[in-house]
Amino acid sequence: MSKLTYEKDITALLVIDPYNDFISEGGKVWDRLKGVAEANQCVLHMSQVLESSRKAGLRVFYALHHRYRPGDYETWKYVAPIQKAAWSRKTFEYGTWGGEIRHEFQPQPGEIVAQEHWCSSGFANTDLDLQLKKHGIHKLIVIGLIAHTCVEATVRYAAELGYEVTVIRDATASYSDEQMHAALDVNIPNYAGSVVTTVEIVESISSLT
Amino acid sequence: MSKLTYEKDITALLVIDPYNDFISEGGKVWDRLKGVAEANQCVLHMSQVLESSRKAGLRVFYALHHRYRPGDYETWKYVAPIQKAAWSRKTFEYGTWGGEIRHEFQPQPGEIVAQEHWCSSGFANTDLDLQLKKHGIHKLIVIGLIAHTCVEATVRYAAELGYEVTVIRDATASYSDEQMHAALDVNIPNYAGSVVTTVEIVESISSLT
Amino acid sequence: MSKLTYEKDITALLVIDPYNDFISEGGKVWDRLKGVAEANQCVLHMSQVLESSRKAGLRVFYALHHRYRPGDYETWKYVAPIQKAAWSRKTFEYGTWGGEIRHEFQPQPGEIVAQEHWCSSGFANTDLDLQLKKHGIHKLIVIGLIAHTCVEATVRYAAELGYEVTVIRDATASYSDEQMHAALDVNIPNYAGSVVTTVEIVESISSLT
Amino acid sequence: MSKLTYEKDITALLVIDPYNDFISEGGKVWDRLKGVAEANQCVLHMSQVLESSRKAGLRVFYALHHRYRPGDYETWKYVAPIQKAAWSRKTFEYGTWGGEIRHEFQPQPGEIVAQEHWCSSGFANTDLDLQLKKHGIHKLIVIGLIAHTCVEATVRYAAELGYEVTVIRDATASYSDEQMHAALDVNIPNYAGSVVTTVEIVESISSLT
Repeated sequence: MSKLTYEKDITALLVIDPYNDFISEGGKVWDRLKGVAEANQCVLHMSQVLESSRKAGLRVFYALHHRYRPGDYETWKYVAPIQKAAWSRKTFEYGTWGGEIRHEFQPQPGEIVAQEHWCSSGFANTDLDLQLKKHGIHKLIVIGLIAHTCVEATVRYAAELGYEVTVIRDATASYSDEQMHAALDVNIPNYAGSVVTTVEIVESISSLT
Repeated sequence: MSKLTYEKDITALLVIDPYNDFISEGGKVWDRLKGVAEANQCVLHMSQVLESSRKAGLRVFYALHHRYRPGDYETWKYVAPIQKAAWSRKTFEYGTWGGEIRHEFQPQPGEIVAQEHWCSSGFANTDLDLQLKKHGIHKLIVIGLIAHTCVEATVRYAAELGYEVTVIRDATASYSDEQMHAALDVNIPNYAGSVVTTVEIVESISSLT
Repeated sequence: MSKLTYEKDITALLVIDPYNDFISEGGKVWDRLKGVAEANQCVLHMSQVLESSRKAGLRVFYALHHRYRPGDYETWKYVAPIQKAAWSRKTFEYGTWGGEIRHEFQPQPGEIVAQEHWCSSGFANTDLDLQLKKHGIHKLIVIGLIAHTCVEATVRYAAELGYEVTVIRDATASYSDEQMHAALDVNIPNYAGSVVTTVEIVESISSLT
Repeated sequence: MSKLTYEKDITALLVIDPYNDFISEGGKVWDRLKGVAEANQCVLHMSQVLESSRKAGLRVFYALHHRYRPGDYETWKYVAPIQKAAWSRKTFEYGTWGGEIRHEFQPQPGEIVAQEHWCSSGFANTDLDLQLKKHGIHKLIVIGLIAHTCVEATVRYAAELGYEVTVIRDATASYSDEQMHAALDVNIPNYAGSVVTTVEIVESISSLT
């Protein structure tokens, strides 16, 4: 793990989709995520990484999925399967508790919330890349949901766009171990320079303080 | 399979990385792809889909990985793992046979070769999206290599950018069955509206003639 | 004007920044725009083009500048001059009348409001390109403000991204005739296939009904 | 001019379209550019800025227009006016002297040539943004042709994408003084933080050595 070195002024934490619908008891998708999320203590680990990032003075960005609103998809000629699912489930419905960020992960003043994305990548059709550049960021530490959809998509895009990426493997979750394996072991190691644990990243970040 | 309908003027075939280094005996990566590629007759199926697309008058596009040239990466501050691999292996070296398109898949006059991509997505930092728009294309039929890297990346980007995608599951290959499974069964079905066989797509395309 | 033909299903009206701060008496920027805007009856013409587009069943999209919020720019390392101006003037301040769309141009159900842009182009770092593709749009009719900044920037981007553009020269305004000339006569004709009057476009659109 | 400070590791020179067709006697477009280009000693100044950048160790990037090849546009459904002009003139024809870079501006080893662009912006549908990020660049010094098309387009895109831009006003040219004025006085000052002379930039760059 000798490579886990970050320069404070070019490194940021990226928190993906910490919505109640995903990671809070009672959320629309929680029942499907619960098994994996609890097994790896996803929420606890996300909190620990966020807290240590804030303590170390790393800038924090949020990549959030589009919150469902009536009329979103009715006029689209082309709707991807994952968008059809979001449409039928009304995931992250605007104005509801499920579409709110879980309380531990509320953005604080000075933290940047990128525009909502329509599919899975936090970069696609949003201002995330712009906001990162405006703050001089080149390295991303990534936590959040869901490992094989939004997290993997955002990591792949980050690599395509030139960022250096670290993924925290026990600060994410999927519906199944198979999906976790596909994301964290098969695919993401091609695009993220490091895939590490919360213990490892917290130790590394803490040394920045 | 009742949904496999394509309108000729808005549908295109997208051929990904049919380089000798990938799918020809003697290519730098062939030995690692050979097992899966031969098991599903990847090259034969790619040829069949290409031939039937041409017969039906579908427009054909090529998304090609950057061909290695000396000096490509030496000055980069941030290099993704998959780019480090391409760098050390000199995959698709410019001016060598391995960096040429396998003969069955030579672009013909009127077919569009997009600019070479640097990572895995045929869309990232290239003119592929522009070329598709300039030709009025909204639906893509995708074949080529490698299933869990360039193919999955290009399919994910296509969905993010608004395209409707069909992936041909036996006209692609990876290094292992596990990678094929991660790409074709776990991830791509979230982004491609259809994942079908060569027999199925050829039947559907042929009806366009 | 024989070339002004539009196919209803691939053509849309794009309305740029019809904020009170720009085009309503009392708006923060109105005093600077007033001279040119009144001379060419900008607001009236914008209304006429919008009305005839709706009547003809053309889809309508809105490209809106970011509404100012405290904290927007304080942490940015790099701020363009036009962003510094927006910052100091607090143009389109969120939650104020100036940051609301002038009443004649309120989006109606089924019309698409793209994410807010940070500089001048309605396409940069937003979902405008995605929304246009999701609706199958290839041709844009452009009205709104300001001719040499947001309108020209959006038209240039539209051309770069593959769209065919028509600009309505008397349904826009700048601070000076010189700026109008730079935008409408010097630059935009390189990127927009047609630069026409409200009378001409209304006649053409009406024939679609 | 107290603001002209550049940090070597985040600043680059961007040279736009130094093709023989533009700035060499006998080039296809030279006769139209000659008047303005000679009046402001455009080629001499471009050379001086390039030389001083190289001496100071600034990284150098090239944004080049697509070199014309037969078949480029025949199949496009939508062609912008400036693309129609390039098509009919066969500007920068591939394989001809006009499509070569003028000798003073030949890229040297370690300098980066971005993929060719199809319209006017060096960023649109190319890897320029990626290459700049891979090298950690945030500030651009811009020279080259043509002031009101490719230079202005690239400067506008650079600002939209988050870069800080300096334009050298006597190291560019247009067909007319009116176009120079539209670009350098009316539009670019909204997007480039500084618009300065060759003398000023060379002095500033030299202090970096």
